[in-house]
Amino acid sequence: MILTVTLNTALDITYRTAALTPHATNRVAEVSERPGGKGINVARVLAALGHESVVTGFVGGRTGDALRELLAAEGPGGRAAHAAVSDAAVTDALVPISGTTRRTIAVVDETTGDTTQLNEPGPTVTPAEWAAFLTSYEGLAARADAVALCGSLPPGIHVGAYAELVRLARAARRPVLLDTSGEPLRRGIAARPDLVKPNADELAQLTGSREPLRATRDARRRGGRSVVASLGAAGLLAATPDGSWRAAPPMAVRGNPTGAGDSAVAGLLSGLVERLPWPERLARAVALSAATVLAPAAGEFDREAYADLLPRVTVTEQSSQPEQESHAPRQHR
Amino acid sequence: MILTVTLNTALDITYRTAALTPHATNRVAEVSERPGGKGINVARVLAALGHESVVTGFVGGRTGDALRELLAAEGPGGRAAHAAVSDAAVTDALVPISGTTRRTIAVVDETTGDTTQLNEPGPTVTPAEWAAFLTSYEGLAARADAVALCGSLPPGIHVGAYAELVRLARAARRPVLLDTSGEPLRRGIAARPDLVKPNADELAQLTGSREPLRATRDARRRGGRSVVASLGAAGLLAATPDGSWRAAPPMAVRGNPTGAGDSAVAGLLSGLVERLPWPERLARAVALSAATVLAPAAGEFDREAYADLLPRVTVTEQSSQPEQESHAPRQHR
Repeated sequence: MILTVTLNTALDITYRTAALTPHATNRVAEVSERPGGKGINVARVLAALGHESVVTGFVGGRTGDALRELLAAEGPGGRAAHAAVSDAAVTDALVPISGTTRRTIAVVDETTGDTTQLNEPGPTVTPAEWAAFLTSYEGLAARADAVALCGSLPPGIHVGAYAELVRLARAARRPVLLDTSGEPLRRGIAARPDLVKPNADELAQLTGSREPLRATRDARRRGGRSVVASLGAAGLLAATPDGSWRAAPPMAVRGNPTGAGDSAVAGLLSGLVERLPWPERLARAVALSAATVLAPAAGEFDREAYADLLPRVTVTEQSSQPEQESHAPRQHR
Repeated sequence: MILTVTLNTALDITYRTAALTPHATNRVAEVSERPGGKGINVARVLAALGHESVVTGFVGGRTGDALRELLAAEGPGGRAAHAAVSDAAVTDALVPISGTTRRTIAVVDETTGDTTQLNEPGPTVTPAEWAAFLTSYEGLAARADAVALCGSLPPGIHVGAYAELVRLARAARRPVLLDTSGEPLRRGIAARPDLVKPNADELAQLTGSREPLRATRDARRRGGRSVVASLGAAGLLAATPDGSWRAAPPMAVRGNPTGAGDSAVAGLLSGLVERLPWPERLARAVALSAATVLAPAAGEFDREAYADLLPRVTVTEQSSQPEQESHAPRQHR
């Protein structure tokens, strides 16, 4: 079982409109709702890959009730017809709070596909609720093959929260992945997680460098045992104890990038628990990520595209010397 | 008791943002929710004027539950501290449906006050639900001093629905006001409501004329016993069996016009049941409307502004001959 933590869960609402006109009245043509938050997206992709997962974090209010109901309906028993029969279960271990789960609204222009995102602030979590979460988390982490800590912190949670959760996972000898940003990332990485997956902006904010290989290695020195940076259409850059690699999709893909990073996390986590070599983990993460951009619904991936892309991902080993990087790349597959 | 009908109720959500940027991620600084839909807004203002009201229409799903809970909390027992103690009750007689009440989202730029509106489609109402509503409506209308039919029709409701509700109110000898647009207005007005309150666009769509006095009189010929057209900042234009009047605020007011028309309806309705002469009804409606534009929250009115504006509204009688209109206006107050 893989445990994913989403402290700032959300009810993700998608509105399709002809075209969003600011400062006017816009009719919404179609409304859809989905359980949201990065760790929940990761668990959804893990389930599609056949990995049992447990989601935890906080949930509350009417929007929280809607989230849990939709999460239960997504399971193998209630899942929509498009899902494969082999999907594994996502188990709800969310911790109830007195606050109300936030909504996020993605307004998608039907003509251009452009998306305007509106994110509500999260509910304030009380110290007693955080304590209840920690107790639950310790029990779940002890049974997990891997732990993923994903996304932003809701109000009320101390900024070192991810560092605390990393330390608890490490004390239980469970591999732990951290995917967050800003100060929670800075503090969390110092607690020595097994893997961090920043995007280019998060990496630059953490290290002060926009040179990906340099920044990725700097992030390792800050405490990340392995660092996998997502570089958008350019794929992934990994710095690990076993070596450094770039992994790139066969072509740039166009579509909705929402959830692409979460799919990459699911690829890395599933590869980790399956003990795949790094190049295979990275190829899977890149193919899943591209197949997510290609899927019509944000945060889902196109299974056919994934199967088609996977063998065509290029993984190139990087020299251990950053300055020689561009001279002698070695083709891995 | 005044009965207000809102067939397409809504949970009105307001988001305050620094400034809405299309095709980007926008953080919402503040979220508020309110029971919405035109008839519910009318009832809220009636309550503030001391008139007991009953709201009916359809409500369903989690958003419907939230709407009812917020409506109950608005009552004299649960109303927020800013409300006057003299407020009358708004009684919930909404009819439950299997569909889910729509949301409307108003995204307010904190810097400019500009509002971008996103309106979800309403739930589909089944024939059985419409039949249940009609039974309830007949009972409520028989006890009402006046009936107001407000807003758009949700999917599933036949386009002659308001005409049907007008006829039922007239059969029960209750004065009935209609405030809607398009084909429902065209059909509804033919059923001879006591009062219709179109805005300039609705009036032009109904009559084909953008000349307000001509269009207002045309709307009377189509079946409206009295027609009060709202002309935005210019105030109201009334054509009634007792005469025609223009009513204008002392100055143009700047602010959020959301709900201004609903406040005008409440002013007209309260004046009707209090048997005020037309000029007083119109002055009240104009002052409430302007005080709604001036209020910080959409669809509420500023009581101090209302008290200040009321004696300063100009009501001018119009000649019965449209072509003489501009020659001999008579100052009423």
